[in-house]
Amino acid sequence: MQEITNIVIIGTGNVANQLAFALHSKAVNIRQIFGRNAERAKSLADKINTEFCCDIREIDKTADAYFFCIADKAVSEILSQTDFTDHLLLHLSGTLNIEVFTGYSENYGVFYPLQTFTADTVVEFSDIPVCIEANKASNINKIKDLAGKLSKDIREVNSEQRSVIHVAAVFSCNFSNYFYTIAEKILDDHNLDFEILRPLIKETAAKVMGHSPSLVQTGPAKRNDERIISEHLKTLEEYPGFEILYKLISKDIQDHYNK
Amino acid sequence: MQEITNIVIIGTGNVANQLAFALHSKAVNIRQIFGRNAERAKSLADKINTEFCCDIREIDKTADAYFFCIADKAVSEILSQTDFTDHLLLHLSGTLNIEVFTGYSENYGVFYPLQTFTADTVVEFSDIPVCIEANKASNINKIKDLAGKLSKDIREVNSEQRSVIHVAAVFSCNFSNYFYTIAEKILDDHNLDFEILRPLIKETAAKVMGHSPSLVQTGPAKRNDERIISEHLKTLEEYPGFEILYKLISKDIQDHYNK
Repeated sequence: MQEITNIVIIGTGNVANQLAFALHSKAVNIRQIFGRNAERAKSLADKINTEFCCDIREIDKTADAYFFCIADKAVSEILSQTDFTDHLLLHLSGTLNIEVFTGYSENYGVFYPLQTFTADTVVEFSDIPVCIEANKASNINKIKDLAGKLSKDIREVNSEQRSVIHVAAVFSCNFSNYFYTIAEKILDDHNLDFEILRPLIKETAAKVMGHSPSLVQTGPAKRNDERIISEHLKTLEEYPGFEILYKLISKDIQDHYNK
Repeated sequence: MQEITNIVIIGTGNVANQLAFALHSKAVNIRQIFGRNAERAKSLADKINTEFCCDIREIDKTADAYFFCIADKAVSEILSQTDFTDHLLLHLSGTLNIEVFTGYSENYGVFYPLQTFTADTVVEFSDIPVCIEANKASNINKIKDLAGKLSKDIREVNSEQRSVIHVAAVFSCNFSNYFYTIAEKILDDHNLDFEILRPLIKETAAKVMGHSPSLVQTGPAKRNDERIISEHLKTLEEYPGFEILYKLISKDIQDHYNK
């Protein structure tokens, strides 16, 4: 098996940044960063001591693998404008089908790190599950080998399963964070500090590290405490959107635990 | 100021257990556990080497303070059946107004530890914010003194503020945990292991320890990615309840970030 020893990163967003840092720290040769925004491309390239380009025609065509760290809809755009011959093409999307690469190369796959990436938080890659998929066994092995340098948790997952995982991730990560934001808004409006919730948020996540979440549910809806639920709904009267969510979710929890 | 040196705990649930362990570990004398269920009362009392009783008439009337670790609606029930003369009465509820004690004692207050308690997880009390309130200054001082033995984060909060904090806690803790449960259900149904989400859940909570949640939101709704949102809604067609939540929350996030 020919190892992936040098790569090009297409994209300059949060995922591109985190992947670039992680690969660079494992001495993988990142030949080039491509990004349409020169400033962002240069900034990332500088951080890992490499080249950058902003013109799609200048993408280095001799790398072993190309990581598409860009919005799903931009992947086809780039593909249709470039000839990658038969180099290994990889995307990092939770939802995009592997077959987006069909016809553009004989070698392609998916490298989906299941984590939430924001610009200013450097994540420890070694614990991040990486879901991989490829169009053939030789490519799976190459991807597995590279992913193994970053993480100890590599899983072969097909496109349909990956999409299900992505939906589950939206609930447990994106929506949870939005609920933290709702909490912060309500507290702010009453001159209370979000700080007070931090130990609770930490413990809520910590508890499901060793337990099934369905076994550690707490709160008024779980206890079927209608009095508290209606007091809370009164507090939420000034927030019609939050009130609807509170009602719906409490009802679901009550149905789940008290049927 | 006369210190609280010995107490009675009314209740045998998760909160009663955690409070009893925490106070016992700080050498506070817990004179008695009261609970209608003899088995549960004995079990808790045995763990901390103390007495228990199941008959409300046998509650020890000579303690410095009485902790009502019971459902909100049970508090008035107990009060109406017992004469606590003017001993210090405290409840641990997020929502119950302090005035529930009016007429039953000249000394009362609230001791609300903001944390999620489940039976088999012993929590580290020292980081838990304890919201306290009392009917007079001398009682606030007593409560502050006792709370300070357990936690380094004691906050004076009135009943209205406490109720707001409780609503915020429901969103960030109870509802987040329910969303972990939704994620687990979806994964289970597709023969995928909840384990894969744990690093993501951990990181999602860890990120808001140092940031405002509104600044670290990620995901398709934040990016206004309608294509992914509609793919996810397709995946959720078999779960009408989850589909409604996904739609509503995504819409809220889109409105919040993309207006």
